[in-house]
Amino acid sequence: MPCPIARALDEVGEWWTLLILREAFFGVRRFDDFQERLGIARNILAARLKGLVGCGILEKRPLPEEGSRRVEYRLTPKGWAMRTVLLALAEWGATFGECGQAVTLETDDTGEPVRLALIDQDSGLEVDPRRVRIRHPQAEAVLAPRG
Amino acid sequence: MPCPIARALDEVGEWWTLLILREAFFGVRRFDDFQERLGIARNILAARLKGLVGCGILEKRPLPEEGSRRVEYRLTPKGWAMRTVLLALAEWGATFGECGQAVTLETDDTGEPVRLALIDQDSGLEVDPRRVRIRHPQAEAVLAPRG
Repeated sequence: MPCPIARALDEVGEWWTLLILREAFFGVRRFDDFQERLGIARNILAARLKGLVGCGILEKRPLPEEGSRRVEYRLTPKGWAMRTVLLALAEWGATFGECGQAVTLETDDTGEPVRLALIDQDSGLEVDPRRVRIRHPQAEAVLAPRG
Repeated sequence: MPCPIARALDEVGEWWTLLILREAFFGVRRFDDFQERLGIARNILAARLKGLVGCGILEKRPLPEEGSRRVEYRLTPKGWAMRTVLLALAEWGATFGECGQAVTLETDDTGEPVRLALIDQDSGLEVDPRRVRIRHPQAEAVLAPRG
C-alpha cells in the first residue's frame, strides 16, 4: 500500500468511520453519545471505535468518576490532523451538495471567514491550484484542467 | 442528509471511488486504464464509474477516433473540486502512514513546496487551526485540542 491516499482510506475511508470522527470534532466522547447522535447500530459503532483506537486516531481513557468502569474516546494528534480531510469534505459537500446546508469556518475571536487553500510553504502566499502539481515516485498529477 | 460531510461521503466515501478519482487526477481517462492501474474487478469499476457520472463528478465523452464507440471519463468542475479532499488525505497519509511514501506538492514552474492550510478569506494570511471553529446550524466544532 505505497500511496498515502490509499493508506489513509484504508484506515478511514468508510462512511461511519468519518462520521464518528466528525462527531469527535464536535466534542462527542462517550459511546452512548456517539450512538445517539449517529443512530448507528451498537455493534457497528463498537467495531468502528475499536478500529479507530487500533490505528491511533482515537484513544480510550477511563472516565474520571470514581468507581466508573466507563471510558471515553478522545482524538489523538493523528486524529486532530484529520481536520483538513473533514474540512475539505465539508467545503466540497457545501459547494456541490444538493441542499446547500451552510457550514462556515471562521476565526474564534473575530469571526472572520476562513477557508482551505494551497499556500507556498516559504512565502505563505496562496497558490492557484492550476500552478500546483503532486509529485509522487510513480506518477505526477495535475490539480486543475489544463489547456 | 443535512450535513455536507455526510453528503460528500454519501457520494464519494468509498475506497474504490476515491482511488478512481485519484487516478483521474493522474490523467487516467479510459476504462481499461483505470482497470489496469487499480486491479479492480471490471463490474465494480463499471458500477463506480456509473455512480461518479451519475453524481456529476465525472463525465462520459465519446472518444474522438472516428467510428469508435469507446468513451472516456473526464473530471467535471465538481470533480476537480475534490482535489482538496484528496490532497488532505494524501498529506495525512504521508504524515501518519506506516511507510512514509514521499508525496510532495510543488509549483509547476519553480518547484516551490506547497501545502494545504487554513487562510483568512480577506487577508489571505494563514490562520492557526486552534483559532478556527466550524459553524453549523446544529453544532459547533473545534479543530484542535484546547486547554
